[in-house]
Amino acid sequence: MTELDRVLARVDEQLDTALERLFELLAIDSISTEPAHAEACRRAADRMVEELASIGFDARRHDTPGHPMVVGHQGARDADAPHLLFYGHYDVQPVDPLALWHRPPFEPALEETAAGPVIRARGAADDKGQLMTFVEACRAWRTETGSLPARVTVFLEGEEESGSPSLVPFLEAERDALAADLALVCDTGMWDADTPTVSTMLRGMVGEEITVTGPSLDLHSGMYGGPAINPIRVLARILADLHDDAGRITLAGFYDAVDEPSAETLAAWAALGQDELAFLGGVGLSVPAGERGRSVLEQIWSRPSCDVNGIDGGYTGEGFKTVIPSVARAKVSFRLVGRQDPERVREAFRAHVAARLPPDCSVSYRSKDGSPAIVMPADSAPFRAAREALSAEWERPAVSAGCGGSIPVVGHIRNILGIDSLLVGFMLDDDAIHSPNEKYSLRSFRKGARSWVRILEALSREGAAVRGNARGRVADGR
Amino acid sequence: MTELDRVLARVDEQLDTALERLFELLAIDSISTEPAHAEACRRAADRMVEELASIGFDARRHDTPGHPMVVGHQGARDADAPHLLFYGHYDVQPVDPLALWHRPPFEPALEETAAGPVIRARGAADDKGQLMTFVEACRAWRTETGSLPARVTVFLEGEEESGSPSLVPFLEAERDALAADLALVCDTGMWDADTPTVSTMLRGMVGEEITVTGPSLDLHSGMYGGPAINPIRVLARILADLHDDAGRITLAGFYDAVDEPSAETLAAWAALGQDELAFLGGVGLSVPAGERGRSVLEQIWSRPSCDVNGIDGGYTGEGFKTVIPSVARAKVSFRLVGRQDPERVREAFRAHVAARLPPDCSVSYRSKDGSPAIVMPADSAPFRAAREALSAEWERPAVSAGCGGSIPVVGHIRNILGIDSLLVGFMLDDDAIHSPNEKYSLRSFRKGARSWVRILEALSREGAAVRGNARGRVADGR
Repeated sequence: MTELDRVLARVDEQLDTALERLFELLAIDSISTEPAHAEACRRAADRMVEELASIGFDARRHDTPGHPMVVGHQGARDADAPHLLFYGHYDVQPVDPLALWHRPPFEPALEETAAGPVIRARGAADDKGQLMTFVEACRAWRTETGSLPARVTVFLEGEEESGSPSLVPFLEAERDALAADLALVCDTGMWDADTPTVSTMLRGMVGEEITVTGPSLDLHSGMYGGPAINPIRVLARILADLHDDAGRITLAGFYDAVDEPSAETLAAWAALGQDELAFLGGVGLSVPAGERGRSVLEQIWSRPSCDVNGIDGGYTGEGFKTVIPSVARAKVSFRLVGRQDPERVREAFRAHVAARLPPDCSVSYRSKDGSPAIVMPADSAPFRAAREALSAEWERPAVSAGCGGSIPVVGHIRNILGIDSLLVGFMLDDDAIHSPNEKYSLRSFRKGARSWVRILEALSREGAAVRGNARGRVADGR
Repeated sequence: MTELDRVLARVDEQLDTALERLFELLAIDSISTEPAHAEACRRAADRMVEELASIGFDARRHDTPGHPMVVGHQGARDADAPHLLFYGHYDVQPVDPLALWHRPPFEPALEETAAGPVIRARGAADDKGQLMTFVEACRAWRTETGSLPARVTVFLEGEEESGSPSLVPFLEAERDALAADLALVCDTGMWDADTPTVSTMLRGMVGEEITVTGPSLDLHSGMYGGPAINPIRVLARILADLHDDAGRITLAGFYDAVDEPSAETLAAWAALGQDELAFLGGVGLSVPAGERGRSVLEQIWSRPSCDVNGIDGGYTGEGFKTVIPSVARAKVSFRLVGRQDPERVREAFRAHVAARLPPDCSVSYRSKDGSPAIVMPADSAPFRAAREALSAEWERPAVSAGCGGSIPVVGHIRNILGIDSLLVGFMLDDDAIHSPNEKYSLRSFRKGARSWVRILEALSREGAAVRGNARGRVADGR
């Protein structure tokens, strides 16, 4: 039996006590958005400090103007081992509507389901269950071998579900304490229940709230209908013109910095055999509405998109009020890919608006911070090694996936700490994160911990490449 | 001194007591939209019954499921005199925001202003002050001559500011009691402070609330942005396409039933010398946004228009929420002119929507009742006689004006009672009806009463033509 096999066996032996430890954490109602739960967030942070200390980490709580951060350090048995920074979050989403839960959200339990046993509780998947897969992997290494195969810094925040206001200041202040060669982030999911997944392309985002003002006050459409410009009419034209009939976004230069994925990547995605009808059917749709001739996966993973996220103007209550409103407003956001520059997209959008603004209308903006897309070096040695480790655990080739959404911490880790992130997670599409009856498959929990055992070992074997990756990134200033 | 001159002099003599009577009515807080004021509405109705009885009307209150109606009858000295139905309303708008009033809204007072003395109170203009001009005209006739020159039925409602729910049922039930040759409606304004005005063209209206549904639930724009259709995008296209670049409405056949005003009418409007820049400048605009090549007056009085009165969809709170909403909604209304049929416009709008609805989107409608435009026989003998009477009083030619808005009671009077309405009123643009510090010029009140004295006399002289007008209308089934 190899050392690796013995550590993996240790995960299985410790599964029952691991569940007890997870349940203790899940029982803490650390809802970060609700001020009444601030003390619970502190308790969750303290719980994690104890947890990490119990397996040899030099861990402590760092108070912030918001909820505390937790940081723990542990050296490796080998001085040459790479230094890994693990990120997770101990805070959870609110639980309303509470009436839709079939058990109290902070009384975790194992439940049998048709798809196997699941852990049911708020935070079971997002992100307490996931972060504990990593902690349990470390525990198994420690228990079995007395040390970790890599140098590890664990960094947990308690504000992920409430916009992470303290994250950037903390990363900047603790840049040295959090320095590492590669970040490990466990806050994503699997392609499906059997296919382990590394997320290597994350779309960026830029948003603008646009307010079009026409008349200086709301007008009566009988008195003014005709000669008075209606700002909703102007806004409708601006928004309608953002897409052409083929589903492409019309902003000048918008696609200039959009790269096509490699043929190999496209082939791998095609091999996933996504059932597009099932994907769209799940939300009541049947026809991909994005760029013509692109698969749904391409549209979400490697193509930019534009959505109006909200619009309002005039009278929106019951019945009719025949006003010409003074003001109409929309929130517009773009998902970005490749080398698209958020600020250039913002400028192109504003130029698009200016070109459609009639005399007598003015426009104002409120900007949402932009973040560029993030493309990880999926073909580098550490990423290959991680995929191989995952493939061995799940007995199915791991896939390098895109991710349609943004994960802001990954951008901050790149920008402030100068390192890439290996995004590996074990959530499933039906985990109901952010919804009532959140769950985490027991299989995800067990094989998740085993996956990290293997990844730690694989990355420690690739030590030089992992360290080189970080140096390369810092050196080329990305 | 002619009889007419003596009656006019009587109006002036009685002005002080007329103001006392009006102030008594204005002191009653008959806000029809607010249930707490129901008793005040009843008191205002009773006050009007007393008022009418005091000048010889056989008047009584008619209770309804809402606020009461008041109806009073009085015969004429001459059996051949025409029968006139006067309409007004004793209810008023709410008064909030109360803090913006510089005196309590139900404590009427005369105030000196740069433009002369004004009556300040809620309802001073709309419509208590206006309806009392007619009542005071009748009082002057009675006091001076002992009778009225025409047979008069006064009909007052108390729900005009709250949608008139009891109006149609009452008109239908009391068709016989309200039968007359011509209606007189005093709820409109003057072209300017010196130009008396008969409103003879009222735009009609038809409205649709349209709801576009895309995905069956709100989606995350990271997870679905691209392949999922966004109903706001669809709605924006539908709304943007309602106008072409020349400001014309694009619905099929929309202008087929739109008539051009006569050259004479257009010349009269041009002679008014409207200051378009001042009109638009008053509401923060400078460029007529309607059909190119049409004057502002034409756009409002004789051309149809289309406005989006309200729109909403997705997240409209503070900050950003990157959703693809399931639903987007808009309220769209059309102002109609000439022979435009509201139901045909509704059908054309729905066809316009259907042609722009992608697969995967559905649409539903909630209709607002349609009403056609109303065009009065401005060149008929009674209307000419009324204009001459007004011209004599104001020493300035009276104008036949359009009115961009709808006055629903005029349509109901036409449809149910089968008669035309002579719309004469003395409100000025700055009377702040529906706003804080509503006022009515003392000059409007005095000369308004004198105007009705003259109109009663003029119409009694035109008795045969007035009666013929009603018969013609009923006969041709309009």
